[in-house]
Amino acid sequence: MAGNPLRVTVWNENVHETTEPEVAERYPEGMHGAIADGLVEHLGDGVEVTTATLAEPEHGLTEQRLASTDVLTWWGHAAHEQVADEVVDRVQRHVLSGMGLVVLHSGHLSKVFQRLMGTTCTLAWRNADDRELVWTVDPTHPITEGVPHPIIIPAQEMYGEHFDIPAPDELIFVSSFSGGEVFRSGCTFRRGNGTVFYFSPGDQEYPVYHHPDVRRVIANGAAWVAPRGERALPELRNRPLGWFE
Amino acid sequence: MAGNPLRVTVWNENVHETTEPEVAERYPEGMHGAIADGLVEHLGDGVEVTTATLAEPEHGLTEQRLASTDVLTWWGHAAHEQVADEVVDRVQRHVLSGMGLVVLHSGHLSKVFQRLMGTTCTLAWRNADDRELVWTVDPTHPITEGVPHPIIIPAQEMYGEHFDIPAPDELIFVSSFSGGEVFRSGCTFRRGNGTVFYFSPGDQEYPVYHHPDVRRVIANGAAWVAPRGERALPELRNRPLGWFE
Amino acid sequence: MAGNPLRVTVWNENVHETTEPEVAERYPEGMHGAIADGLVEHLGDGVEVTTATLAEPEHGLTEQRLASTDVLTWWGHAAHEQVADEVVDRVQRHVLSGMGLVVLHSGHLSKVFQRLMGTTCTLAWRNADDRELVWTVDPTHPITEGVPHPIIIPAQEMYGEHFDIPAPDELIFVSSFSGGEVFRSGCTFRRGNGTVFYFSPGDQEYPVYHHPDVRRVIANGAAWVAPRGERALPELRNRPLGWFE
Amino acid sequence: MAGNPLRVTVWNENVHETTEPEVAERYPEGMHGAIADGLVEHLGDGVEVTTATLAEPEHGLTEQRLASTDVLTWWGHAAHEQVADEVVDRVQRHVLSGMGLVVLHSGHLSKVFQRLMGTTCTLAWRNADDRELVWTVDPTHPITEGVPHPIIIPAQEMYGEHFDIPAPDELIFVSSFSGGEVFRSGCTFRRGNGTVFYFSPGDQEYPVYHHPDVRRVIANGAAWVAPRGERALPELRNRPLGWFE
Repeated sequence: MAGNPLRVTVWNENVHETTEPEVAERYPEGMHGAIADGLVEHLGDGVEVTTATLAEPEHGLTEQRLASTDVLTWWGHAAHEQVADEVVDRVQRHVLSGMGLVVLHSGHLSKVFQRLMGTTCTLAWRNADDRELVWTVDPTHPITEGVPHPIIIPAQEMYGEHFDIPAPDELIFVSSFSGGEVFRSGCTFRRGNGTVFYFSPGDQEYPVYHHPDVRRVIANGAAWVAPRGERALPELRNRPLGWFE
Repeated sequence: MAGNPLRVTVWNENVHETTEPEVAERYPEGMHGAIADGLVEHLGDGVEVTTATLAEPEHGLTEQRLASTDVLTWWGHAAHEQVADEVVDRVQRHVLSGMGLVVLHSGHLSKVFQRLMGTTCTLAWRNADDRELVWTVDPTHPITEGVPHPIIIPAQEMYGEHFDIPAPDELIFVSSFSGGEVFRSGCTFRRGNGTVFYFSPGDQEYPVYHHPDVRRVIANGAAWVAPRGERALPELRNRPLGWFE
Repeated sequence: MAGNPLRVTVWNENVHETTEPEVAERYPEGMHGAIADGLVEHLGDGVEVTTATLAEPEHGLTEQRLASTDVLTWWGHAAHEQVADEVVDRVQRHVLSGMGLVVLHSGHLSKVFQRLMGTTCTLAWRNADDRELVWTVDPTHPITEGVPHPIIIPAQEMYGEHFDIPAPDELIFVSSFSGGEVFRSGCTFRRGNGTVFYFSPGDQEYPVYHHPDVRRVIANGAAWVAPRGERALPELRNRPLGWFE
Repeated sequence: MAGNPLRVTVWNENVHETTEPEVAERYPEGMHGAIADGLVEHLGDGVEVTTATLAEPEHGLTEQRLASTDVLTWWGHAAHEQVADEVVDRVQRHVLSGMGLVVLHSGHLSKVFQRLMGTTCTLAWRNADDRELVWTVDPTHPITEGVPHPIIIPAQEMYGEHFDIPAPDELIFVSSFSGGEVFRSGCTFRRGNGTVFYFSPGDQEYPVYHHPDVRRVIANGAAWVAPRGERALPELRNRPLGWFE
C-alpha cells in the first residue's frame, strides 16, 4: 500500500433500506453509506471508498471494478439468492487472486462467504435487543488497535454458536449477549492469495454501523486484508527437474 | 466406531485403469481395489469396505448409499469435470453432516475437495520418478501410529508448494522429492460436523497403493475421520430468550 | 488404550479442603476425590484412578509414579509456589515424553501449566456466584461427546478474557458468565509427544466437580489425552547422510 | 512503527567468532555484525540497530536496554548454558509485555526460546554442506514480501524434523535439504503481548548471513514482530460486576 490509497468497494444489497422506512431513517445513506463514512473517518486520505449495490448491472461488481478494488466489504441478508452465480465466481476468483474481503454480519450466509468457507456458515440467532459485548482474545492483532475491551453494543441481534465455519486462522473477537450466548465474532481466514475478515456486529434494525468502535474495527480490518504485491490466481504449474536453478 | 464396523466407500473415477493397459496391469482391481485391500488389511473386521465408480448411475453415490457410508475415500484425476454437480452437492452435504472424507492424491482438484476448501487447490507437479519421502511433523496424531519416519516411496509423481489450500487444522506429514521440492502431504480439515483428511501419495502411474506404509496411513486416516454420534447438517436456529433453560 | 485400563493420577494440592470447613463439607473426599469419582463414573473398567497431593513426599509425583501414569490431572490454587521446581521439571519431562495432562480451573497459574505454555496464563476473575454457560464451538471433537450445548453451571467463579495463553491448537469450549464476560474454557495444546487439555470449570467454593456434565468433559478429556505408543523425550539427533535408507 | 524508527537489538553469543579463526574470517564483524548490516540494508532509516553479546555485563541485556528495544534478535549455540537465568526471565517478561523476538538458527535450543515454547525444541541435524531450499507455504504473509520461491542456500547445516515445537500459529517456510530431510524453517508464535518469529537458516560455518534473501527474510521478520501500542505484562485482574460499564 506504499503511498497509494487503499481502494475499498463497499457492497450492500441495499434492500432493507429501500423497502423499510425505519431502516431508511436509521441509515439515510444506506448501510453502505454508513460503512463508507466509517472507513473515511478512520483511514482518511489512506483510503478511496466507493459503493456498489445489488440493483446495479452485475451488482456493480464488473471484472473491471473488481480488478481496481483492493478490498471489498460485503453486506447482504434478504437477497442472497439474487446474487448472480457468475458474480460470485468472479468475487471468489478475485479474493483467491489477492483482493481483500471483509464480510459483515448477515453476510455469513452470502454465497460469496459460503463459497470461500466450504461450510453452511449457519448459526443461532435472535432479534430481541440483546446487549452485545465484543471481547478481544488476540490483543497482539493489528485489527484490535484502538479497540476497547469490551466493545459495548447496547442493542443488537444475537448471533450464537455453533457457528458453522472452518476453524479460523486467527480468532480475534468473541462476543457475549444478554441471553448468555457466545459467538466467534471476529475471525480471519487466508484463502488463495487473499485474506478474509469476518466481523459479526451490524444489522439493519440497529444503528450498529454508527457505533464508533464498530467502525474502527471495520477500518482496521479493511487495512489488514489489503493485498500485497501482484495479484494472481494460483495455478497448476508443471515443473521440470531443476526449474528453479 | 463403537462395536459396529466402519462402513467405508472407496470411490474411484476408474478411467485410467479402463483405458491404459499399463495402469490396468499395475492395478488389476483398479486403484479402488488396491485401496480397499489396504483398508481390510489394516482394519480387518473393524471395517466394511465397498467401492463405487464414475460409470455407475449417480457415480454410485446415491443419497441412500451416502447415508449408509461412514467414510468416503476419493480418487479422481482425468474426469473431474464429469462428476455431476448434483453428486458434488450431495457429498458436500453428507460431509458437513458428519460423514468422514479421505481425499487422495490428484483428488486435490476434484470438485468435492475444491468445494470444501473454497480455494483452487492447485499445486506444482512433475511426473519424473522422483523419490518421495513423507516426514511426520505431528507425532502425537493418531494418523501417524505405526508409520515410519520417513515413509520412503522409491518412485512417485512430484507434488510441490505452493499448494493452494486453507491452512490445515492439523499438518501431519510434509514430503520432500528428489528434485528438492516440498509438499504438505498430510493435512486435516474440520468442515461442518465432518472431518476431512487429505493425503497426497498415490498415482496411477506408480504402484503407490501397494505400498504398505501408504496403506497404513490411509487406514489410520479412515479410522480417524469416522463420524461420532448422530449425523445432521448444521442449520440456522432461531433461539428465543431462555431457550436452553 | 488398547485393552489396558487408562492409568490416571488425580493430583490436588488439597489445601482448601484441609483448612476450610465449608470446603471440606463440599468435598468430603477432597476435590481429588470428586474428580476421581467422576472418572470412574464415566470410564468404569477403562480407567484405574489414583490420587496424589502436595503434602506427600515429592508431592506424590515420584519418577516411578509418573512413569506409570498415563494421564495426570492437576488442580492447584493456594499453594502453587510450594510445588518443588524439581517436581515441575519432572512433570514437564513426562508430558513432553507423552504423558497426557488435564489442567483444571485455577491450575492455569500452576508452575506446570505456565512452564508448558510459556506465558503468564493470567486472566480476569470474580468470585460472585455468576452462572457459567459452557458452549461447544468444535462439535466434531471427541471431548464434546455426550456434552449438552450449553452446559449450565448455576453458580461459579467468573474467569474472563484476556486469558494469556498461546492460541490453542483446538478451541473446544467458550464460556459466558452472568456479568457478560467470555472465556476460552476448553482448549487443547500439543507439547512434545504429549497432549494437554485445559478445562476451566471447577472451584473449591462451588460444587462444580459434582456436576455431571463437568465430570463427563473431564472424563472425555482424560481419555483423549491418553498417550499412544512408546513414551520418549524428543532429543537432538545427529543424522549422517542416508541415515534412513 | 508509526514514524519512529524500529529499535532492534541484535544479540549474539559471539563465541565462535572469538575462538575460531575461520569463523572470524567469515564474519569479521561477528554474525551480529552481518545480521545488523542486513537489517539496515533493507529497513534503512526505518530501523535503529545496536548489538549486544554474551560477554557484556548482563549479556548487554539490562532492564533499561530491553525497555528501549522494540525487537530483539537472538543467536546462540555454544554457550546457551552461560546465559544467566535472570536475563532469560527478563527477556521472557519483555516478550510477554510486547517486545518482538526473532530467534535464529541454533537459537532453537536457547533458554529463551525453550522458555517461550514450553518444549525441548530439539531437532535432527547434520553438518555436511547440504543445499537448503526454503519454500514459501503462506504467500499472503508479509514476511514473504520480496522473497523468491525457493530461496536457494548452496551450502548449509541440515535441520530436520521432527522439530519439537508447539504447532506454530503461522507456518510460513518449509525447507528441504540435499539429504531429503524437511524442516519447518519459518514459524510465528504469539506469546503474551509479544510476537516471536523463528527462522532457521544461518550458521557460523556457512556465510548464510551474507545471503541477500536470508537478510531480506530477517528484515521482514523484524518489521513484522514490531510491538504495537503500550507495552505491559498480562496480569491477573479481579473484576467486580459491571466493571466495564
